[in-house]
Amino acid sequence: MIAIDAFDPERDLLFERVVQLPRRLIWKAWTEPETLMKWFCPRPWETVSCQIDLWPGGRFATVMRSPEGIEVAGAHSYLVVEPESRLIWTSALTAGFRPHAQPTSDTDFVFTVALTFSDEAGGTRYRAHVMHATPKARQRHEDMGFQEGWSTALDQLVEAMAGQV
Amino acid sequence: MIAIDAFDPERDLLFERVVQLPRRLIWKAWTEPETLMKWFCPRPWETVSCQIDLWPGGRFATVMRSPEGIEVAGAHSYLVVEPESRLIWTSALTAGFRPHAQPTSDTDFVFTVALTFSDEAGGTRYRAHVMHATPKARQRHEDMGFQEGWSTALDQLVEAMAGQV
Repeated sequence: MIAIDAFDPERDLLFERVVQLPRRLIWKAWTEPETLMKWFCPRPWETVSCQIDLWPGGRFATVMRSPEGIEVAGAHSYLVVEPESRLIWTSALTAGFRPHAQPTSDTDFVFTVALTFSDEAGGTRYRAHVMHATPKARQRHEDMGFQEGWSTALDQLVEAMAGQV
Repeated sequence: MIAIDAFDPERDLLFERVVQLPRRLIWKAWTEPETLMKWFCPRPWETVSCQIDLWPGGRFATVMRSPEGIEVAGAHSYLVVEPESRLIWTSALTAGFRPHAQPTSDTDFVFTVALTFSDEAGGTRYRAHVMHATPKARQRHEDMGFQEGWSTALDQLVEAMAGQV
């Protein structure tokens, strides 16, 4: 048994879409570094580094780079790894379940992402439930362009995997 | 496979002792609310409430009360539950893997506790590896009386369970 907190509209964000890809390819896109780097970051930013240790407590680290060369690094920890169906990771912990250093600027925030992939209509229902500690953190994340960012990234994922169906 | 970060003397604290109790009773003391309440908080403070949902993402919540009536509540999340051998929980996440609201005072800190229990010399090696994000957080935790607190609590645990050996 695994417990994921219920969706809370005050503190959470949801991105959900049905895509015409099998779960197998969506899992591959999320869990193979070289594949993830093709789609993870909305262009014109790009993902220039990715480390994945695919087990609870394992490292999920990325570096994203803007066209001007600004780099943004993320170092997260996986919490739940259920192949082809569920992947949960958090920015509250770094690899090995170590707490992440507290955010140092007003634009930082902490979240947990619960991804679930389920069969639907010949494709896959792709669902990202993103949990925050507070309504303010949720709002910051939304204002940074959560919906547009996840939508563009999923378009890029579908494009990257289309040749493998 | 589960990944726990290696012990880092700059950022971590360790409490370790061999006690003459079987692992079964130590596990019981950590995972049954009414039993945990007997020993968890060094006296004269007492534990007045305890909720345990013993699975990854499950709630581990306690309320401790001082002789003057000051109450300190903790709401954590379990990360790894391996009966009688390993229990990992973090204050970085609340139940359901939701990030914890950021600390609001200088004395707050965030940590992950990796407890391991192994057979040794007719008893159990009781090991608590406590991970922090920074050396400063480690120091705060040590200055609050980490070693003395864990030692006293373990004395109380042994006392509480002695009649059940």
